[in-house]
Amino acid sequence: MSETVNVTFVADDDVRTAVTVATGSHLLDASREAELEVIATCGGRGRCRSCRTKVLRGAVPPPTIMDEVQLGPDEVHEGFRLSCQTRAIADCEIMLAPPTSEGGHKLLGSEGDITGRTGIDLDSGVVKHLVTAKIPTEEHEQTSDIEEILTAIGGDGPGTMAMDLLRDLPEVLRKEKGTVTVTTFNGTIIDIEPGDTTAHKYGLAFDIGTTSIVGSLVDLNTGEQLAAMGDVNPQAVYGGDLMSRLAFAQFSPQSLRKLRSRVVKAVSDQIKEGCDEAGIDPAHVYKVVVVGNTAMHHIFLGIDPTYVGLAPYSPTMRNAIELPSAELLLKVIPRARVCFLPIVAGFVGADTMGAVLATRIDESDEIRVVVDIGTNGEVVMGRRGKLMACSAPAGPALEGAQIRHGMRGAVGAIEKVEIGDDVTCDVIGNAPPIGICGSGLIDAVAKMLDAGVLHPSGRFHLKDRETLPPKLAMRLIAGGTGKGEFVLARADESGKDEDITLTQVDIRQLQLAKGAIYAGVLMLQRIMEVPDDDIAEVQMAGGFGNYINIESAVRIHLLPALPLEKITYVGNAAALGAQMALVSERERNRANDIAREIEHVSLAARPDFQDIFMEALCFPGDENVELLASAQTG
Amino acid sequence: MSETVNVTFVADDDVRTAVTVATGSHLLDASREAELEVIATCGGRGRCRSCRTKVLRGAVPPPTIMDEVQLGPDEVHEGFRLSCQTRAIADCEIMLAPPTSEGGHKLLGSEGDITGRTGIDLDSGVVKHLVTAKIPTEEHEQTSDIEEILTAIGGDGPGTMAMDLLRDLPEVLRKEKGTVTVTTFNGTIIDIEPGDTTAHKYGLAFDIGTTSIVGSLVDLNTGEQLAAMGDVNPQAVYGGDLMSRLAFAQFSPQSLRKLRSRVVKAVSDQIKEGCDEAGIDPAHVYKVVVVGNTAMHHIFLGIDPTYVGLAPYSPTMRNAIELPSAELLLKVIPRARVCFLPIVAGFVGADTMGAVLATRIDESDEIRVVVDIGTNGEVVMGRRGKLMACSAPAGPALEGAQIRHGMRGAVGAIEKVEIGDDVTCDVIGNAPPIGICGSGLIDAVAKMLDAGVLHPSGRFHLKDRETLPPKLAMRLIAGGTGKGEFVLARADESGKDEDITLTQVDIRQLQLAKGAIYAGVLMLQRIMEVPDDDIAEVQMAGGFGNYINIESAVRIHLLPALPLEKITYVGNAAALGAQMALVSERERNRANDIAREIEHVSLAARPDFQDIFMEALCFPGDENVELLASAQTG
Repeated sequence: MSETVNVTFVADDDVRTAVTVATGSHLLDASREAELEVIATCGGRGRCRSCRTKVLRGAVPPPTIMDEVQLGPDEVHEGFRLSCQTRAIADCEIMLAPPTSEGGHKLLGSEGDITGRTGIDLDSGVVKHLVTAKIPTEEHEQTSDIEEILTAIGGDGPGTMAMDLLRDLPEVLRKEKGTVTVTTFNGTIIDIEPGDTTAHKYGLAFDIGTTSIVGSLVDLNTGEQLAAMGDVNPQAVYGGDLMSRLAFAQFSPQSLRKLRSRVVKAVSDQIKEGCDEAGIDPAHVYKVVVVGNTAMHHIFLGIDPTYVGLAPYSPTMRNAIELPSAELLLKVIPRARVCFLPIVAGFVGADTMGAVLATRIDESDEIRVVVDIGTNGEVVMGRRGKLMACSAPAGPALEGAQIRHGMRGAVGAIEKVEIGDDVTCDVIGNAPPIGICGSGLIDAVAKMLDAGVLHPSGRFHLKDRETLPPKLAMRLIAGGTGKGEFVLARADESGKDEDITLTQVDIRQLQLAKGAIYAGVLMLQRIMEVPDDDIAEVQMAGGFGNYINIESAVRIHLLPALPLEKITYVGNAAALGAQMALVSERERNRANDIAREIEHVSLAARPDFQDIFMEALCFPGDENVELLASAQTG
Repeated sequence: MSETVNVTFVADDDVRTAVTVATGSHLLDASREAELEVIATCGGRGRCRSCRTKVLRGAVPPPTIMDEVQLGPDEVHEGFRLSCQTRAIADCEIMLAPPTSEGGHKLLGSEGDITGRTGIDLDSGVVKHLVTAKIPTEEHEQTSDIEEILTAIGGDGPGTMAMDLLRDLPEVLRKEKGTVTVTTFNGTIIDIEPGDTTAHKYGLAFDIGTTSIVGSLVDLNTGEQLAAMGDVNPQAVYGGDLMSRLAFAQFSPQSLRKLRSRVVKAVSDQIKEGCDEAGIDPAHVYKVVVVGNTAMHHIFLGIDPTYVGLAPYSPTMRNAIELPSAELLLKVIPRARVCFLPIVAGFVGADTMGAVLATRIDESDEIRVVVDIGTNGEVVMGRRGKLMACSAPAGPALEGAQIRHGMRGAVGAIEKVEIGDDVTCDVIGNAPPIGICGSGLIDAVAKMLDAGVLHPSGRFHLKDRETLPPKLAMRLIAGGTGKGEFVLARADESGKDEDITLTQVDIRQLQLAKGAIYAGVLMLQRIMEVPDDDIAEVQMAGGFGNYINIESAVRIHLLPALPLEKITYVGNAAALGAQMALVSERERNRANDIAREIEHVSLAARPDFQDIFMEALCFPGDENVELLASAQTG
């Protein structure tokens, strides 16, 4: 090892600063030597995220426990590090202050005006009344401050108004000589401010997934989205999949508290981030709509999720609720009311309700299918007046997790794969690839099946190297386990100085994931007696990181083999549904009606599930591919 | 000063232990020398009340600041001291662990069953349902824990049920195989416990006065009072009268917080004390009814009381409210809903509403008057369909405060005075007198007027000593100011080694107090055009410490000169009204109707108030006494 190494820092404006430091120096010290300003709020002790960097090229030591705690396994996996924890041991390129979101997890059509996109009326339930209330001046008047305000807004009673508003009211009322802005939510006063603040009325929608948390900040005066936030669910350090996280929660009351405080912190951080980005005061956030699967819903509310994870997977509550933000420890938005969409049953949770709202399957005259793919995949099938739903434990593979080189749909993720004589990868941000996201994984496997790199059984056969085109043959390697591994990007092309591959284990993970979801579709088709031909449309939803290739999804039998024009990808429909309920009380109320209508099918309780699941696990064989081809042209 | 002193400790079972210690030793050390167990939780640093004692006889040094802070001025005044702060400087007798309540502040007829005393039905709104809810077991059931409980109790929705109940629900429901006791308050679930707890259903009523706080613990299954609590309002260290306390509150937000936390702590302490005494779990307290004047009401709720103290004395809110105990920081009763009776206007507050409920003046066919005497005196006059009320700033003299030897109605307080050739005092507890309570003060002044010791003008004339019987003449002394002072008990008879006297300043304090209240009565009589003869009854209420002598109250013109049979003393009617609203929702709802009916008269805004007040200040002259005598016999 040489005594010095060269560290090149890349700022977000692409300005590069190189510095030579003693081998083993911390990156934070190196950045200071380079006279770069890196904030280290905790003083460089690994107690915060402020000195977060990303390793673009070059080897660094394995992550420390502080990296894992502050950044979470997914970010660490993608090359993020705390600069105070990371020593320079070889020449490297380090991105300073990398963006926290990297443009991943954006919703399909998430820009601009939600009401315009969805065709619903702006009706958030939040109303700001600018009034000049009479300040009591006459001794004989039998009145009080709050009565004068109620008279001014035409209200008929203080209702369940929060005490903290009354506490400051005497001063607030008199500050601008009685001119106040009174904010109500469905008629209940939730804020009283001196002067005119009617221009400021904001809301938030969150989809709390097992793997990812996405949020959006919306101007409730216009329906416009002001900021989109997204990050991994930091609970992941206590278990990537839902069941291991529930097992952790059962371990002790402290465990539940840890899970809860992580998600609360993540949501609070996103709120701060969004408000900062949009330049608004979090005190002007008045309504929050939250969706999430049943376990995430219970954990966020602090409800013991033990029995959600044990047969018969019964939730503690299913009804829609509305709470003051303080009840959820979201101190950052003191005035807000937080609304949760209802739960149908078991794991068919508030996120599914969001997807149903967004896709309007309940208003369809023909049979449609909504497949919402997350760590659990939910399938809703039916039409107006007859809806059934089930939840399938897909695991996080389709979100890019638990795959050796899997990652979120962020800069550096392979999102699309072409295989001809050789492999061509499209990478998010046109950066050197550092991993593969969910949509890339589906595409890669479909193309590998087509190219004969992967057998319909889901196995690599190393002897295929004899028949494959030479460049593909060179990519099919034995790998560490000797079971075969396909190189999508070679070390010299990648941003990681190592091959980006798909392993046999990765393929099995994908099969389990897609098989669970496809089994859910097949099960509902069987129970509802719906042959493929009767399905008018399949709407695929989920946060894969990027737009999914529908042909590839059909090719691997994640979805039934319908003509492609019958299948659409609708993005993160759960999050979109949350946004709709945010801007429209009519939509939020609609969710309650629909939740009562949907019939829940518990897959685990069906004796025929195992058979269907085994069938669903497979990739289509040659004969099936032909069948598919004829279906697509028919 | 001798080198040693003798300290005699008196235990509550009257066992006496004497010890000789070095002069200047702390009483705590002396008690240890005597091998007595005195608890000093804070280690003898004056930071707690655990080593509280009472000086029965003998001189001790002036109280330290720690004595003042821990015990408050009233207790210090009555001879209470922290033994860790008090040095033995002369032979003395010290009561160990003196009772905290001493039987003072008991309500008239406060023992036993409230419903029996008041003739109202037990209808607290708190219902305990013992049910066995179905634990979801079948996979296809679309249900949740809370829905099963609602089905079992026949409820139709979780309403505004608190989240914390849902948080523990999965475990609670399964602990006794679905057998749970569900507690509702007006239909809303406020508690769910495993097993059968229907026997335990309690409530509390509090009257938070400027000078005193009294509470009672009631069994809501029977209406029986289980404990009565009472103590001085510890806010008094920030000002004895209301206006100085409001001035303190305006000083800074911290001041309001100090006032609030003192009253919250006092109430919490009384709750603990009552529950300990009755041997019940505070978690089984489900309903609390609070009354208090407008300022105390606002401060307890944490509402800025600034404008309550400034003309036009407008409250921030007047409506009845109901809050979870956590909102009031009453952590000791986690399940309780706290209900405040409504406010009429200005200082005619929730306490007056309590008095109106208890006296049922709103149901009278004839004109009646309720005079509720506290630091502020409220007068309500009228009959069914026509009620008027006003509030008069009496100050605390009638509660025994701000009188040189004034004290609460506790052991050692002179409660009754006879004057013939000499003075005879009745003392609460038949103890050596250490002071005089409100009822004693009224009685003493009335008898002093009769005996000619005091002139109708309210002045002592030292030259009267020439005409008074010799023993009385000897009691009329010049005193420190030379303005005259009347000795009720001589040093050698008293428990304080000093004369218990009434000073000229004391008499003036009494005149201001009784004058304010009497002016309120006269003002309402004038506005409503009610001559004395039209008044069917005067009901005098208040916490004077002990039963008041009505004849004496009339004699000093605290009340109009009506035939004595038309005047009754009804005890602490505000507190009784709170108890009625506690055991009966019908009564609590009645208060809302009445509050809207009562017309408020602002004394300060009446141009004729000063004249009436001057008239009311005086004691009846000779001619008036004759008039009074004829009225009483007529």
